[in-house]
Amino acid sequence: MTSQPTPADKFTFGLWTVGWQARDPFGDATRPPLDPVESVHRLAELGAYGVTFHDDDLVPFGSDTDSRDKHITRFRDALAETGMAVPMMTTNLFTHPVFKEGAFTANDRDIRRYALRKTMRNLDLAAELGAKTYVFWGGREGSEVDVAKDVRAALDRFREGIDTLAQYCVDSGYEIRFALEPKPNEPRGDILLPTVGHALAFINSLEHRDMVGLNPEVGHEQMSNLNFVHAISQVLWHGKLFHIDLNGQHGPKFDQDLVFGHGDLLSAFGLVDLLENGGPNGGPSYDGPRHFDYKPLRTEDIEGVWVSAAANMRTYLLLKERAAAFRADPDVQEALAAARVPDLSIPTLAAGETYTDLLADRTAFEDFDAEAAAERGHGASRVDQLFIEHLLCAR
Amino acid sequence: MTSQPTPADKFTFGLWTVGWQARDPFGDATRPPLDPVESVHRLAELGAYGVTFHDDDLVPFGSDTDSRDKHITRFRDALAETGMAVPMMTTNLFTHPVFKEGAFTANDRDIRRYALRKTMRNLDLAAELGAKTYVFWGGREGSEVDVAKDVRAALDRFREGIDTLAQYCVDSGYEIRFALEPKPNEPRGDILLPTVGHALAFINSLEHRDMVGLNPEVGHEQMSNLNFVHAISQVLWHGKLFHIDLNGQHGPKFDQDLVFGHGDLLSAFGLVDLLENGGPNGGPSYDGPRHFDYKPLRTEDIEGVWVSAAANMRTYLLLKERAAAFRADPDVQEALAAARVPDLSIPTLAAGETYTDLLADRTAFEDFDAEAAAERGHGASRVDQLFIEHLLCAR
Amino acid sequence: MTSQPTPADKFTFGLWTVGWQARDPFGDATRPPLDPVESVHRLAELGAYGVTFHDDDLVPFGSDTDSRDKHITRFRDALAETGMAVPMMTTNLFTHPVFKEGAFTANDRDIRRYALRKTMRNLDLAAELGAKTYVFWGGREGSEVDVAKDVRAALDRFREGIDTLAQYCVDSGYEIRFALEPKPNEPRGDILLPTVGHALAFINSLEHRDMVGLNPEVGHEQMSNLNFVHAISQVLWHGKLFHIDLNGQHGPKFDQDLVFGHGDLLSAFGLVDLLENGGPNGGPSYDGPRHFDYKPLRTEDIEGVWVSAAANMRTYLLLKERAAAFRADPDVQEALAAARVPDLSIPTLAAGETYTDLLADRTAFEDFDAEAAAERGHGASRVDQLFIEHLLCAR
Amino acid sequence: MTSQPTPADKFTFGLWTVGWQARDPFGDATRPPLDPVESVHRLAELGAYGVTFHDDDLVPFGSDTDSRDKHITRFRDALAETGMAVPMMTTNLFTHPVFKEGAFTANDRDIRRYALRKTMRNLDLAAELGAKTYVFWGGREGSEVDVAKDVRAALDRFREGIDTLAQYCVDSGYEIRFALEPKPNEPRGDILLPTVGHALAFINSLEHRDMVGLNPEVGHEQMSNLNFVHAISQVLWHGKLFHIDLNGQHGPKFDQDLVFGHGDLLSAFGLVDLLENGGPNGGPSYDGPRHFDYKPLRTEDIEGVWVSAAANMRTYLLLKERAAAFRADPDVQEALAAARVPDLSIPTLAAGETYTDLLADRTAFEDFDAEAAAERGHGASRVDQLFIEHLLCAR
Repeated sequence: MTSQPTPADKFTFGLWTVGWQARDPFGDATRPPLDPVESVHRLAELGAYGVTFHDDDLVPFGSDTDSRDKHITRFRDALAETGMAVPMMTTNLFTHPVFKEGAFTANDRDIRRYALRKTMRNLDLAAELGAKTYVFWGGREGSEVDVAKDVRAALDRFREGIDTLAQYCVDSGYEIRFALEPKPNEPRGDILLPTVGHALAFINSLEHRDMVGLNPEVGHEQMSNLNFVHAISQVLWHGKLFHIDLNGQHGPKFDQDLVFGHGDLLSAFGLVDLLENGGPNGGPSYDGPRHFDYKPLRTEDIEGVWVSAAANMRTYLLLKERAAAFRADPDVQEALAAARVPDLSIPTLAAGETYTDLLADRTAFEDFDAEAAAERGHGASRVDQLFIEHLLCAR
Repeated sequence: MTSQPTPADKFTFGLWTVGWQARDPFGDATRPPLDPVESVHRLAELGAYGVTFHDDDLVPFGSDTDSRDKHITRFRDALAETGMAVPMMTTNLFTHPVFKEGAFTANDRDIRRYALRKTMRNLDLAAELGAKTYVFWGGREGSEVDVAKDVRAALDRFREGIDTLAQYCVDSGYEIRFALEPKPNEPRGDILLPTVGHALAFINSLEHRDMVGLNPEVGHEQMSNLNFVHAISQVLWHGKLFHIDLNGQHGPKFDQDLVFGHGDLLSAFGLVDLLENGGPNGGPSYDGPRHFDYKPLRTEDIEGVWVSAAANMRTYLLLKERAAAFRADPDVQEALAAARVPDLSIPTLAAGETYTDLLADRTAFEDFDAEAAAERGHGASRVDQLFIEHLLCAR
Repeated sequence: MTSQPTPADKFTFGLWTVGWQARDPFGDATRPPLDPVESVHRLAELGAYGVTFHDDDLVPFGSDTDSRDKHITRFRDALAETGMAVPMMTTNLFTHPVFKEGAFTANDRDIRRYALRKTMRNLDLAAELGAKTYVFWGGREGSEVDVAKDVRAALDRFREGIDTLAQYCVDSGYEIRFALEPKPNEPRGDILLPTVGHALAFINSLEHRDMVGLNPEVGHEQMSNLNFVHAISQVLWHGKLFHIDLNGQHGPKFDQDLVFGHGDLLSAFGLVDLLENGGPNGGPSYDGPRHFDYKPLRTEDIEGVWVSAAANMRTYLLLKERAAAFRADPDVQEALAAARVPDLSIPTLAAGETYTDLLADRTAFEDFDAEAAAERGHGASRVDQLFIEHLLCAR
Repeated sequence: MTSQPTPADKFTFGLWTVGWQARDPFGDATRPPLDPVESVHRLAELGAYGVTFHDDDLVPFGSDTDSRDKHITRFRDALAETGMAVPMMTTNLFTHPVFKEGAFTANDRDIRRYALRKTMRNLDLAAELGAKTYVFWGGREGSEVDVAKDVRAALDRFREGIDTLAQYCVDSGYEIRFALEPKPNEPRGDILLPTVGHALAFINSLEHRDMVGLNPEVGHEQMSNLNFVHAISQVLWHGKLFHIDLNGQHGPKFDQDLVFGHGDLLSAFGLVDLLENGGPNGGPSYDGPRHFDYKPLRTEDIEGVWVSAAANMRTYLLLKERAAAFRADPDVQEALAAARVPDLSIPTLAAGETYTDLLADRTAFEDFDAEAAAERGHGASRVDQLFIEHLLCAR
């Protein structure tokens, strides 16, 4: 049985996930604070590979240097004891009121400078802890009132911020790549990089664009009712899947951060199939951490927190198992061929063919029988049903 | 009064807009076909600058060469008589059943080739008619079943198609730029380039990326509940606003194509303000056609069609007038300054400042008083209320 | 294996489902017309129990009496040959342009009268064919422009229409119940009874409210991103689940009418569990037809149509099998008890207890330890994970 | 100028609106607590008619009796000094963790009992302060996991709770009516009464249904992308508009609680027109408080709070003024008549006409010319454009 997680599965969790105290817009915290050291131990016992965190998850905002050092030392000890890795780190630029109107793109210049400095300090720690990916979720980079934010200036400042920080990493010899995390809204009415598409486009404007990629999150794209499997395919196509946030969501509403698979299960299955079997030759298309960025339900006590943490990993492994069976099934291969899915990899122009040749090819237009071609069926329903039956282990 | 349109306003309409026969997924056509020649005349009388069209709007699919020539001649005569321009043209790659599974990205290679040829033929006509923009709306480039479409291969084929067609234009000496039109869904369950972000990112992968930009449509972004003013700001920032489709929509539902302003009116006002007053020095940020891509309500008769066509232009002009008053109001200037909106244009690092200097600036971090900075108000509500009161002509 | 459908499963299909020619807002039909007689035979072979239809599905709009009789006779013969039932019928009050602005609630009184007559004629046929349920989907009862439709007058007219038709059935001795089908939008911008809630409320205003219930459709509620399992629970609570339309949808977008289960699979599983095991004592909560109101993908040929028809039934049966296993699992029983799910059936006031007694009970308030009660976990994640693992046949 | 508010306009504000400290799911409070006494004075100065509140807004949760009395006394003094009314009150059954899994419908019976007692205590205060409306927003009555909540049992308990509390009011001689407030989600994944429709249907099951109505909120319906003007029309039709919450929202996303009019402005205009001019003879259709349930943007300081409070009232008054002009315009009357909007008030059957008469009327069916009727235009675009031009004061 493959569904018992091990570090080889590369499952990681944010400290802020299991450690979420379950304060929501209408309610107070329902769970006590969780010591990051305990989280490391418990997650290690459950089979995780590592943890990730924002600076303030480990070291409370405003701590002095001594206190900061103590927090870090205790944490490093826990890592050493458990063998847990820290593959990703990030900055909290959204909780403190100082960031209420933005961080890298706040209208106030001194706040922008402060945000850069706060990030630089944590980049140093990231390098020290061996984190290879540094995530930028610009949750406060946005607005509620269109005319109160100059979006083009905001993009200038965002670019300036990322360029500056990238240069800092390069010059410091840090082996860190940046991963931007899009989200359409919440906490801001509209956030600056609302989808993976916008973030990919933005990256192309950067000086160090090669070291900047994406950290897409399941629920964030689904909040715009966009197809997450398509999103990840596009990010892979652009070579920018640097990290991934797995969770669940029920369509356009507040950010639910459900357990992976507890939202749109069919899409979760498609995603695992893509990550595990969607490589150019059929292998994994992504080999980084499978990172869960979820929130244990506010109704859960601490025992329920660990149940939900385990559920993320187990669901992933079950989906992985079913995806392997789907791909190995000869009926599936036959159905995909019947749907001409593999034919899309054949270039439209033959090797060496030019548009002049195409223009000269009467079978392509003058003699093309559009009516006959239109009659061909595409067999997508059959493929979909096979996919579902494999998910349900019904074949 | 500025609200009587003239050709100087550059208002254009698709032949398929006023000519829509109002067939919908649950109902038959409610209006008879409209002769494109009549549309040209009527729109000219209403003050429009030009018309746009898909190949099949002018020449029915499958027409022979003689018939095609006659259609084109009659149409050119109408243009000459009225002085109407054809600033944009596009290809219908979605109505005929042959394109049911895609055009440039159909799984079937012969259909992809046919789509290229159909487009090339119409590009020739576009060049002949002097169209400067050629729109690509890939309405059938998508899927309903994730595993039945290889999205990365589809992007390869889409790129191949655009690259080929761009080369064809370049070699032919056509002064045509391409404009991609994103849409999240409908008619396909998920369309390949769902938002302006995805399209901008895709453009960066193209060989002739400089000649390819966007044709964003109000309703298409709003179908994902994304902010259209933000969208256009981003497209402008990337230098890619080649054309624009104006209409109205009431959030995430089927594509409504309402009259411009008859959906989210406040966003329409923000958009006009951006287009007319959002340039680097306060002038227009876009000088191309203001193109209406709407559908007269299915309940309207032909008289209602022309009423609705006029409504688009009149609403635009009213919003333009109000936007000018908003920008000219000293109270607005003061409120924007109080909200520090202009400050976002000041680089975060001073001229010549490096991150090393920033690190050495204790006021930026060590001595920065985050609590005090957090107390500053941002005055966005005041700005928003001023904006609304100018829209309502209440100041 | 339970997944081979038989008439005992009571699966029914609309003639308009398999018979959909796949014309969409942007494309022409991709499939030829399908003879209703053939549909009856093919669906019978696949294991269906019956078919349903709109008047115009069987007899083209405008047919004369002779032609109508012939269509009906051929169809009755097919029913007799196959043993197929017609448990439900309905009226097409949306395709013909005459209904473009409404049917029972059109602003034009003569159109309202015509709509009533069209329905009465088909009610006669329904009684003749033994249909027990008559569905009212008011797809054109709505508006795009708020001020152009008096919604309260529209509700008056809708009520008048239903009351009149109900009286007609009662007086005619027809054993027919009415089922209203809500939908939020499409084809109208806003439809009069947008959700099951609105329809339930409307029913309470009717003269013959006992003979009027609901025909909820999976995708219609999901188009508003509402929870369909909750919706059906509410309809059952009100005693109004007279019929049900099963299909699939991917959230707020155009009406997709996917195969059942091919949208939100987890919700489909919850629905089947509710229908099959949600009765007061654990048995079925609904014993009527399991009616598929879906559209075979436009990309499918006729073979794909039948594949998709079969997929609906097979998926339902698989989910039914898994739901039975879920309910039979002692771990599930234990987890539900731990989550105190059954406790919600215990009245809040004890038998005979009054609010005076409650006021006198100091343990209920003065001595109630809110902090301690707040610490209890609710174990919902565990229940959800068990649910998913049973769906995946992973236990 | 009508846009200066006075108590005669009946504008009211929740203490929790201006008093919101701006804590959100990702950020800490940005504003200090606001003394309810100060809110009363400031709102009075701005022209408000009254304030509303949850028990815990005035008296912090867990206060002892003495402390409670002091809070109440200070508050009553402020009311007396300012002449402000308290037309509505409500219970906070959502902030404290004890309500995390529900209040009247919590799986835990002791929590349900506690919720009833907490409400009864506040009902006594409501009666004492002369509040005529008591609102029930069941924000925690819902679930995230379908199988972990028995929705039908929940509706039983909700009914039991409301019935018990209604009986308590009746027996106590309190002149209080109840108003249920629907919401689709947030803070729960799915809330029990998601729309006005569901709440209206629920009311019909209650023992004291006459004293229970609705408190619809603009943003709550718009979170499901439902038309709020339609919603209020339906609530009025059912005679259940007991109270109303005015604010703004940008479609399906987290609950934004924007200033009234700062979301969908056109819909806000339609709403004000309905409330002010939609009565049976053209007068107001609702004469209760115009209650603002909004949140000042988190980016605002306390000065911005009062600016935003004033903006709500001023926008309402501006829209009221424009709605009066719209209704008074003879062109509008003519356009509405041309669209046959008033004709919908004419019963479909003539006075005394039965369905038998209708069956005998050959003009209704046999001789009805559907094609000719289908050709009539409905002039909705013209009406919509007139509506917008009056909003813009452009006529």
